[in-house]
Amino acid sequence: MSKEITSRKEDYAQWYNDLIIKGELADYSAVRGCMVIKPYGFALWENMRDVLDRMFKDTGHVNAYFPLFIPKSFLSKEAAHVEGFAKECAVVTHYRLKNDPDKEGVIVDPEAKLEEELIVRPTSETIIWNTYKTWIQSYRDLPLLVNQWANVVRWEMRTRLFLRTTEFLWQEGHTAHATQQEAVDETVKMLDVYADFVENWMALPVIKGVKTPNERFAGAIDTYCIETLMQDGKALQAGTSHFLGQNFAKAFDVTFSDSNNKLDYVWASSWGVSTRLVGALVMAHSDDDGLALPPRIAPLQVVIVPIYKGNDQKEMIDAAANDLVAQLRSAGIRVKYDNSDHTRPGWKFAQHELKGVPVRVAIGARDLQNNQAELARRDTKEKMTVSVEGLPRTIISLLEEIQTSMFNKALSYRDQHITPVDTWEEFERVLKEKGGFISAHWDGEPETETRIKELTKATIRCIPLNNKQEKGKCILTGKESEQRVLFAVAY
Amino acid sequence: MSKEITSRKEDYAQWYNDLIIKGELADYSAVRGCMVIKPYGFALWENMRDVLDRMFKDTGHVNAYFPLFIPKSFLSKEAAHVEGFAKECAVVTHYRLKNDPDKEGVIVDPEAKLEEELIVRPTSETIIWNTYKTWIQSYRDLPLLVNQWANVVRWEMRTRLFLRTTEFLWQEGHTAHATQQEAVDETVKMLDVYADFVENWMALPVIKGVKTPNERFAGAIDTYCIETLMQDGKALQAGTSHFLGQNFAKAFDVTFSDSNNKLDYVWASSWGVSTRLVGALVMAHSDDDGLALPPRIAPLQVVIVPIYKGNDQKEMIDAAANDLVAQLRSAGIRVKYDNSDHTRPGWKFAQHELKGVPVRVAIGARDLQNNQAELARRDTKEKMTVSVEGLPRTIISLLEEIQTSMFNKALSYRDQHITPVDTWEEFERVLKEKGGFISAHWDGEPETETRIKELTKATIRCIPLNNKQEKGKCILTGKESEQRVLFAVAY
Repeated sequence: MSKEITSRKEDYAQWYNDLIIKGELADYSAVRGCMVIKPYGFALWENMRDVLDRMFKDTGHVNAYFPLFIPKSFLSKEAAHVEGFAKECAVVTHYRLKNDPDKEGVIVDPEAKLEEELIVRPTSETIIWNTYKTWIQSYRDLPLLVNQWANVVRWEMRTRLFLRTTEFLWQEGHTAHATQQEAVDETVKMLDVYADFVENWMALPVIKGVKTPNERFAGAIDTYCIETLMQDGKALQAGTSHFLGQNFAKAFDVTFSDSNNKLDYVWASSWGVSTRLVGALVMAHSDDDGLALPPRIAPLQVVIVPIYKGNDQKEMIDAAANDLVAQLRSAGIRVKYDNSDHTRPGWKFAQHELKGVPVRVAIGARDLQNNQAELARRDTKEKMTVSVEGLPRTIISLLEEIQTSMFNKALSYRDQHITPVDTWEEFERVLKEKGGFISAHWDGEPETETRIKELTKATIRCIPLNNKQEKGKCILTGKESEQRVLFAVAY
Repeated sequence: MSKEITSRKEDYAQWYNDLIIKGELADYSAVRGCMVIKPYGFALWENMRDVLDRMFKDTGHVNAYFPLFIPKSFLSKEAAHVEGFAKECAVVTHYRLKNDPDKEGVIVDPEAKLEEELIVRPTSETIIWNTYKTWIQSYRDLPLLVNQWANVVRWEMRTRLFLRTTEFLWQEGHTAHATQQEAVDETVKMLDVYADFVENWMALPVIKGVKTPNERFAGAIDTYCIETLMQDGKALQAGTSHFLGQNFAKAFDVTFSDSNNKLDYVWASSWGVSTRLVGALVMAHSDDDGLALPPRIAPLQVVIVPIYKGNDQKEMIDAAANDLVAQLRSAGIRVKYDNSDHTRPGWKFAQHELKGVPVRVAIGARDLQNNQAELARRDTKEKMTVSVEGLPRTIISLLEEIQTSMFNKALSYRDQHITPVDTWEEFERVLKEKGGFISAHWDGEPETETRIKELTKATIRCIPLNNKQEKGKCILTGKESEQRVLFAVAY
């Protein structure tokens, strides 16, 4: 069963889908574009969420919850926001059903029409800033550092499990500050938190940068982002952090009096990551045999499989395995003893490989006699025979090694796929033959960026932070340029 | 400011509202019937959620996530479900907005009408059982023990913060079993989990029982519940657990083959508690000075307030307080040193009283010289001077004592408000003058229950589990009755 995965070479998109479905992370649902996150996928998301939530709290943020619905008129209060954002969304127009008078079933009650339609939140800036108006009066109420974990809906025409779904889960931070500098600092700080999380927990190297105006969040002054690279050479934006200036404060009239009793508009940031990260994780590390999950966020870090004939052997192995489970659990390791007897070891091996469990321990009767066990790491498929003596410690350090090694592998792949390019021909050739990021000069014109996208599907993923200033000629127009930027075809 | 709370005696409903708003638990929002859960209220909900989540996992459940939207046709598949439930709900009819051609702003794009309307989930039985159809084939796939934390929407006409809101947060467990007995056992087990949580964490005694057919969940064979009593003598249903029989399995055609390869419909339970619990907590324990939160779920368990003149004293107290904070934190206590210097101690005292922080520690300069500190407990307002020696331990045992004492106080109040009554006159009099639960005979007829509700607003809250069988005469009709049931006016 696990072997029915399409290979990456054959069809990368199908490979990804096979992993999500057969790895039991998610399922299609009866509602167009919405997915069901299955228990294994949700456990992965929970681990990610819990780590991020701890990081947010450690940087002084608190959680709150704002309404799912946004009055339609709110969306048009910030001009750029409504232009760039709010069109494709779910609209609630009625609040009651009634029995169909003509046949079985229910129909929408035409009497129950809302005076003003409600939009299912695609993001919450508007409803939150409308609320902040009543929360903020004085500089003493600032900074306001609030995060929300929520579901949001954007009516997507072409969806892919985790990567782009009509409904998805995310967190959105919305902060309010007394000064521009504080708001910018917060924006950058949260970008760093995201980078820390994605690199050190998801084992996925990121490039931190700033978006060009074309790719900016609708309503932002600046959008910061972390960009990652997938195995097919496409980039994936893993998180964004926006400096919003006073745009939303002005749209919703949120002012504060400073310590000199002077009134000013409040400065803002917003930042978010979503269940899309699960898609990035899957695409970045997995192989043709299934998922490969980094130990620090894997729902299951270690699985133990017994190999035995007859009950005597089983009892002996059970005792050793249960002992190992207890020791690993007390060290905080997520471990399962897979002693179900209706499947064979080979089937279990394939199944745990498919599910991406970082370390497999196989314990056989002869192994036990020799005081040994067999460890197999999921990332490299390497097997090693180790002593039962100190086995928990061996496993724990192997988990750490796997975490580091997965990051280094992804980093080395990423670094090999940043290609400096100086001519248009080379640009097109590298995009086609090698993929990845292309570091090239751009004249700074939105029209040039749009034209390049039309010609090649590549967009400017970001202008890296602390980018080297270097004069050159735009790859397309030949006009003067001050720096290289990173292009890629992106998810 | 904290003293502007309406007293319970003056206006109980207004008192409750004052606590929620001034205690900063929640706020009204711009969307009718929807609330904003403020950071302090959300921290309380998070604590409750985390404890429950741990309890669910310890009893073998896993989390998953299902779509927010339910196709309209799903609702009518289970006949009783649609009759009793699905009428007052938010209906999504369109998926796009467009610029208003006539003026500024956006309008719903009439071209973007959905073929089938989507309902924002009021509960998820239908979408989940539609999914279970593909997840369950064999007895090996059972039991399926899934929980979801989610937002749900029920279009309420009369709303009250936390107690009844159009959108609320909750968890809904949906389990599938091979036998009727297993599903019933699960239903009862989860009722016990809820009772354990509400009694031992929320310090609120419950009565476990079964609902009469009138009060049953739409689509259930049996609805189990835990009922609590508020300070105004009204009952509040704190959680329900439903045995669904094979109703949803039949509606969505979910069958499994047993170990003999015989096909049968799957048996089901569902169970839920919601942010309503926050309302129950507030109503049950608080007083005219503000909230009183049980230590085990209070966002902040201990607050330390310095009392000083001049910087020398402040530095000395700072050192002692920071030391105490460190010791309490390392013991897992949620503590804050409130050393802000723009408010006076008296104001802080009132503020922390309002917010219901269980223990206040006041440290003054003279106290320190005498190696003393003053403790004040929120529940009884008692103050005590204690030695700085062993202070963390003193505080920790005081927190435990407060938890027990709050439960006992609520229990004693509840027990004094279960009144056995044998005549209709007495029934009406007790309801009017004393309130609380009335234990009375009922003839078992739904019509009688409806009539009693019309006459008095009281409903049958439950038939207690393991109810004593005792012959008597129905309080209203005088007909034969086998047992007393519990009546009350309820939230």
